[in-house]
Amino acid sequence: MAKRIGRYVIELENRPSLLSGAAAVGKTEGEGPLREDFDLCYESDKICEGSWEQCETHLAADAVNRALIKAGKTYGDIDLIFAGDLLNQCVASAFFVKNTDMPFVGLFGACSTMALAMALSGLSINSGAAKLALAAASSHFCSAERQFRFPLEYGGQRAPTAQRTVTGAGAVLLGEHDKHLPGIRAVMIGRIRDQGIADANNMGAAMAPAAACTIVDFLRDTDKKPEDFDMILTGDLGLVGSRLLLELLQKRENTDISAVHQDCGNLIFDIEKQDVHAGGSGCGCSAAVVCSLIFKKLMRRELNNVLFVGTGALMSPTTAQQGSPIPGIAHAVWLTSDA
Amino acid sequence: MAKRIGRYVIELENRPSLLSGAAAVGKTEGEGPLREDFDLCYESDKICEGSWEQCETHLAADAVNRALIKAGKTYGDIDLIFAGDLLNQCVASAFFVKNTDMPFVGLFGACSTMALAMALSGLSINSGAAKLALAAASSHFCSAERQFRFPLEYGGQRAPTAQRTVTGAGAVLLGEHDKHLPGIRAVMIGRIRDQGIADANNMGAAMAPAAACTIVDFLRDTDKKPEDFDMILTGDLGLVGSRLLLELLQKRENTDISAVHQDCGNLIFDIEKQDVHAGGSGCGCSAAVVCSLIFKKLMRRELNNVLFVGTGALMSPTTAQQGSPIPGIAHAVWLTSDA
Repeated sequence: MAKRIGRYVIELENRPSLLSGAAAVGKTEGEGPLREDFDLCYESDKICEGSWEQCETHLAADAVNRALIKAGKTYGDIDLIFAGDLLNQCVASAFFVKNTDMPFVGLFGACSTMALAMALSGLSINSGAAKLALAAASSHFCSAERQFRFPLEYGGQRAPTAQRTVTGAGAVLLGEHDKHLPGIRAVMIGRIRDQGIADANNMGAAMAPAAACTIVDFLRDTDKKPEDFDMILTGDLGLVGSRLLLELLQKRENTDISAVHQDCGNLIFDIEKQDVHAGGSGCGCSAAVVCSLIFKKLMRRELNNVLFVGTGALMSPTTAQQGSPIPGIAHAVWLTSDA
Repeated sequence: MAKRIGRYVIELENRPSLLSGAAAVGKTEGEGPLREDFDLCYESDKICEGSWEQCETHLAADAVNRALIKAGKTYGDIDLIFAGDLLNQCVASAFFVKNTDMPFVGLFGACSTMALAMALSGLSINSGAAKLALAAASSHFCSAERQFRFPLEYGGQRAPTAQRTVTGAGAVLLGEHDKHLPGIRAVMIGRIRDQGIADANNMGAAMAPAAACTIVDFLRDTDKKPEDFDMILTGDLGLVGSRLLLELLQKRENTDISAVHQDCGNLIFDIEKQDVHAGGSGCGCSAAVVCSLIFKKLMRRELNNVLFVGTGALMSPTTAQQGSPIPGIAHAVWLTSDA
């Protein structure tokens, strides 16, 4: 059974395990600091012969397939897959899953999708609704630019506060508790925060209040302090949003997480050297970082307790054009290597 | 705990109850046969002063608010809301939920979203992850036409096989077992079926194979016959898809559900008299029908066992323009009035 702790946190008493994780990425991501941690780095963002959308579907398939191979499992073993992406009607995920015969829960959480998928997968394993569940998310720079901003051919200038949508996908396979593997100890589904940010070139600012809200509530409900975690990992606020998060927590909540804070959007690129403006974003960003670097560090027990706080900006091009502010959300997953 | 029966069905042993349900609809729906069953019928699809998207958000809020009022609950009592819609990035739901401070799981299942939301809400209550959960879905004729087909001003002709996107929303509040109320006995998350239908004006045909697959698997896993249910309710195949479903089941699976089959897309309109072509569709169609007519009949025990099979077409305008076939999915929820 799941057990509520405090108001918002759900403890997974059966402690589902992460059986395997895999990440596949594009060119720019493969040139970044995590190259060695990814399972597959394409040398171009043109990953297949089809459209950019089909390239993204291809990446999602790569990540899931590699995660399954590592665990010695096949599609037929999977009880549920929770997956989503940024594309209209989540087609990157659906068009991959349709070839697999896996029971499919389509999610939309924008860049928080990986955390949402891991939270729901964990709940499913914990309750016995599934014995094996996959959580997956993807994004592609070119399909996202076309859909949310301008076609690449237009050659638009990007604002310094803009983040670069990651070409990448991550997948993790969850199963019943195994004391030799990392697991999920608790999850929290976030509430939407909207502080009136309407600048679609500054998603980090739009999402930071939601991240702050989720972190404060999680720490309060679990009666923990920031230093009880080796890492509080947001994904993906980028440079601007990360600074805002630390400031919001310090000034409004008297909470200092700076010693343990990392952000997937800052980890995936070398922001000084790569032309990525304020860092990475997109469903594939936190998915690729968590399913590679973080999973491996948990396996090696270099990290023992990670609070993964996936952040998402719940806007569409239509709402942006209509001048609506950008609502943010953040879901939390407490990852642990503790046996 | 949830218990797997057979390969795909998940039994909810704690039998979560449907505490209340509500539906709000637009003009054409209010002129149809279910007028008296809906909680709120607007006399125009221009439900608020804002955009069509904002009108849809308004409808979603109406349905949720009425469901909460009936049960004497407020937003603050809700542990989780599972909601989704057809709009890009599911903004109809997000822009309603952002004003409520409820923990939000964003779903995308196209027209199957209500079934998906009810299945996940049921699982959450069953496992103790939530004490009170909302499931909600919405659609709006005008926002859907603009996004998926043509702006209304264009005055495009609709094909006879096309369904009319329902302007409507439905919400149901789920809680722990109460023997005086209808409940959920089992759920099944569907797999995607794609038989190569690429005609975006014939969604019923694209979804019928998925509905057939889910119905056959559900009956096999639970060892039931069609006549063990008072109603097998698909939502929403419309006229064309319903005929195809019966034919597929009879010819390929030797299963005859015609005596108990109904479809939300056929129930919501008077197809003979209203200019709705092949019937209703959209996330709001099955949501509005299940949360009004079906919920009331279960309450009055005029129906005792209903297999609600929500169907969705997982395409986007981009995939349609790229010539991709339309993948269909169907999720099942076994609703019961049995104490």
